Amino acid sequence: MSGLLTETIKKIKPLDGSAVEQARRRQDRLTKPQGSLGRLEELSIQLAGIQRKPVPQIKDKAIIVMAGDHGVVAEKVGNWPQEVTAQMVYNFLGGGAGINVIARQTGVRLTVVDMGVATPLENSPALVSRKVAPGTKNIARGPAMTIEQATQALETGIDLANKEIDKGLDIIGTGDMGIGNTTPSSAILAVMSGKAPAEVTGRGTGIDDELLAHKINVIERALAANRPDPKRPLEVLAKVGGFEIGGLAGVMLGAAANHVPVVIDGFISGAAALIAAGLAPQLKDYLIPAHRSAEAGHRILLQHLGVKPLLDLDMRLGEGTGAALAIFLSEIACKILAEMATFPEAGVSEKQS
Amino acid sequence: MSGLLTETIKKIKPLDGSAVEQARRRQDRLTKPQGSLGRLEELSIQLAGIQRKPVPQIKDKAIIVMAGDHGVVAEKVGNWPQEVTAQMVYNFLGGGAGINVIARQTGVRLTVVDMGVATPLENSPALVSRKVAPGTKNIARGPAMTIEQATQALETGIDLANKEIDKGLDIIGTGDMGIGNTTPSSAILAVMSGKAPAEVTGRGTGIDDELLAHKINVIERALAANRPDPKRPLEVLAKVGGFEIGGLAGVMLGAAANHVPVVIDGFISGAAALIAAGLAPQLKDYLIPAHRSAEAGHRILLQHLGVKPLLDLDMRLGEGTGAALAIFLSEIACKILAEMATFPEAGVSEKQS
Repeated sequence: MSGLLTETIKKIKPLDGSAVEQARRRQDRLTKPQGSLGRLEELSIQLAGIQRKPVPQIKDKAIIVMAGDHGVVAEKVGNWPQEVTAQMVYNFLGGGAGINVIARQTGVRLTVVDMGVATPLENSPALVSRKVAPGTKNIARGPAMTIEQATQALETGIDLANKEIDKGLDIIGTGDMGIGNTTPSSAILAVMSGKAPAEVTGRGTGIDDELLAHKINVIERALAANRPDPKRPLEVLAKVGGFEIGGLAGVMLGAAANHVPVVIDGFISGAAALIAAGLAPQLKDYLIPAHRSAEAGHRILLQHLGVKPLLDLDMRLGEGTGAALAIFLSEIACKILAEMATFPEAGVSEKQS
Repeated sequence: MSGLLTETIKKIKPLDGSAVEQARRRQDRLTKPQGSLGRLEELSIQLAGIQRKPVPQIKDKAIIVMAGDHGVVAEKVGNWPQEVTAQMVYNFLGGGAGINVIARQTGVRLTVVDMGVATPLENSPALVSRKVAPGTKNIARGPAMTIEQATQALETGIDLANKEIDKGLDIIGTGDMGIGNTTPSSAILAVMSGKAPAEVTGRGTGIDDELLAHKINVIERALAANRPDPKRPLEVLAKVGGFEIGGLAGVMLGAAANHVPVVIDGFISGAAALIAAGLAPQLKDYLIPAHRSAEAGHRILLQHLGVKPLLDLDMRLGEGTGAALAIFLSEIACKILAEMATFPEAGVSEKQS
């Protein structure tokens, strides 16, 4: 592995135990029964450990949405045309997509990245062009990309995370766009979890039973053709991954190396997290799983990562839409820890033992 | 029943089917796979029906927190002193409670009401004083209040909902504070659902096994002493309810009568919803259940109401903390419907059939 990737992985340290302990003690002195704010309390404590501050703070919030195309669409695994990836990039730039609406409402800044869209995209000041190649190759017949391209995708993500940090960053979320990208994501999940493709493959944007059976068969063929080794996550990415998936894994590594919490969106971001956590197991402590996607394999994915999602709203859009909602909850969790009065401050009597 | 209550119940109409249908059609034309925003899509459609607008809007947001004390604390059903109800009212007025933090962050205005706090409260311009009596009577020995007091509590809630509507109101949430109020809430749930007290009684602020067994026994005694009839919700409120529970039920009726969506918080607000929906079954369509409380009986309560909560964050604080989060989700849901581009607007190709 090359320099930036190796160095970044080395920089990912355990959470700050002292900050965790101080945050927990403060939660228990706030004017409420202990534990009565549930997941919001746990979240504030995790954020303290990540940011290495007893009272974590979230002001600068960003989501990186990465777009890429997938050669496996040649196998007709879905029912949307490939050109939609590029069209949705323009929709992001124009402010009309789901993530634009939620990001505006939650005060999250959005960066849109072309990691490997097949259609040539017009230049735009708002578009970050980092195309590794115009779409991956067909994983049903061979590797999606070379090891060099996989490394490039990861390091692009690290570089872009660093650029966000330079702008000021307290939390980052991941988002994806790529017609066909539930197929490589399910393939990654099958490899990393050891489960059969049939167990981890879902309906993506909404395919019928017949197409689902075909999609499972395509993934089985991809695994047979590539034989990826779960102990080699970089190779898994190269063999059955995607450019936006590699880029998002890089964002996660780059953020965690700099003590920035990472909110992972849904199924595609989860597949990226499997690659990133495979490269750097310590990363898991830095992850905040936004929601349980309606995509079938996501439950297994989250179990394999060992994380519990905050939300369960039957969403399956991607784009970072779930991440934006969870960033909002993270901000609330920090404000509660920072702004609620303690028992002595408010003159409230404590529980009788 | 008296005039205001009867008139308000009569005013609660079915949702506007035409607005529902138009909202559903617009959701299906937005640039995303149909249904991929899950519960947020359903929520926007429900809000359209409630507000009777094809594109519902949420700008003015309010939560009413109602406080009351409970004579049943004489039976030692919990482990916090009764004076905490009044102390927490001051904490709300001072801005240091959990609901204050979340309301600030979500742009929700807060109204704090004394419906029946036992401790005399100092006057404050921010406190709405509508004390029915200084605490209910002990339900283990007889009725909590008279039928006249129950009617007064309900009509106070209706009146305060009307006052919020006069200020401008697009959505309202309910919140409660009252040491001991999980006991009358469990009693109401037992009556209205027909379940045994042991099935619907939980640990409130966190009591141990011994105290839980005692609390269940107290509720059994309350039902035996009062014999409330589930077909007479006003009588149920009077016999085993509370002043803040009656007030919140009134808020729900008053809001629904004026086409304002009602976000119900946790267990106590849920008990109020059982009373309100008992009086006006049509009310259920106007309810947005914020979250599944960690309080044991809440699952049964939500099933009995026939509603599915938006969030499940192991919260059990009350005060409207869950409601404020769900108001935020409701606002997001409306913005998505209003602001996302349609397929033709964004020039995005649609799914191939």
